[in-house]
Amino acid sequence: MQGEEVIIRKAVQGDFGAIYPIFEEIVRAGETYPYARDTSYEEAYRIWMEIPHETFVVEASGKIIATYYLKPNQSGQGAHVCNCGYMVASHARGGGIAAKMCLHSQERAIALGYRAMQFNLVVSTNTTAIALWKRMGFETIGRLPEAFAHPILGYVDALVMYKVLITCSTRS
Amino acid sequence: MQGEEVIIRKAVQGDFGAIYPIFEEIVRAGETYPYARDTSYEEAYRIWMEIPHETFVVEASGKIIATYYLKPNQSGQGAHVCNCGYMVASHARGGGIAAKMCLHSQERAIALGYRAMQFNLVVSTNTTAIALWKRMGFETIGRLPEAFAHPILGYVDALVMYKVLITCSTRS
Repeated sequence: MQGEEVIIRKAVQGDFGAIYPIFEEIVRAGETYPYARDTSYEEAYRIWMEIPHETFVVEASGKIIATYYLKPNQSGQGAHVCNCGYMVASHARGGGIAAKMCLHSQERAIALGYRAMQFNLVVSTNTTAIALWKRMGFETIGRLPEAFAHPILGYVDALVMYKVLITCSTRS
Repeated sequence: MQGEEVIIRKAVQGDFGAIYPIFEEIVRAGETYPYARDTSYEEAYRIWMEIPHETFVVEASGKIIATYYLKPNQSGQGAHVCNCGYMVASHARGGGIAAKMCLHSQERAIALGYRAMQFNLVVSTNTTAIALWKRMGFETIGRLPEAFAHPILGYVDALVMYKVLITCSTRS
């Protein structure tokens, strides 16, 4: 992907035909996301397009190569912390697309009024993702023992990662 | 409540008329749960009775004085970790009802095949709850900075707490 122009834009309903193969490939593998490995097209649509606050796609040469969602991590008094999920098609990995999406999502989150971003279940064996989130300024809040059932490795730990986006503390 | 016999039993649909005032009192106060403070009866029913795997009530002298739900904390490869929420009517607090429910829920979770229990957002100012979960063997996984918008205190930290219920590690 190096050097290629990519654009990030809001997903529309008609994009899901191109989003689903990316979702399906990652979710079927079952190594990084806690969605059921046999998640249907309809359920995936609900998860990725309906439940989130916003969903984006990344296009390169007019083709969708990656996608992310942004949503409140909790309701009510926890709704000022957002959560995102990022997926890059396997053929498009290694070119900095996930980093671009993460930066984009942080800007978007701030614009939407969120104050922090939380990842609830970063699989400890997903070292590429962990390294990236650290570079992006996320801190590891803690480690959940054996919280993820990896299809090859068995029960593995998962991390809770967090980044404060707006520092305007009521405590300071 | 000291000395009074209490029973814990599965909630049925007709119990919700007695559950809702307990839910409403706690959620309107907005100091411990991240549900919207104006959560409607219908939405509360969905949250407490429909979404969970199981819901229980605590009865004393034939009256419902407390309730809890039990559900998977994540889907798919995270569904072996459960999450619970406990609510005790204000007039019934201080008698060990929450502890009874927590013990009951751990037994129930094990019976249902869960391997661990996670609390995602224990409000740091809710010191009674934190002390109880610690006594119940929960460990603090980490502290989420200003993750809860307390209606009186402003943004306060929240804890992620976790207890392994089944220790049969694939790593050992």
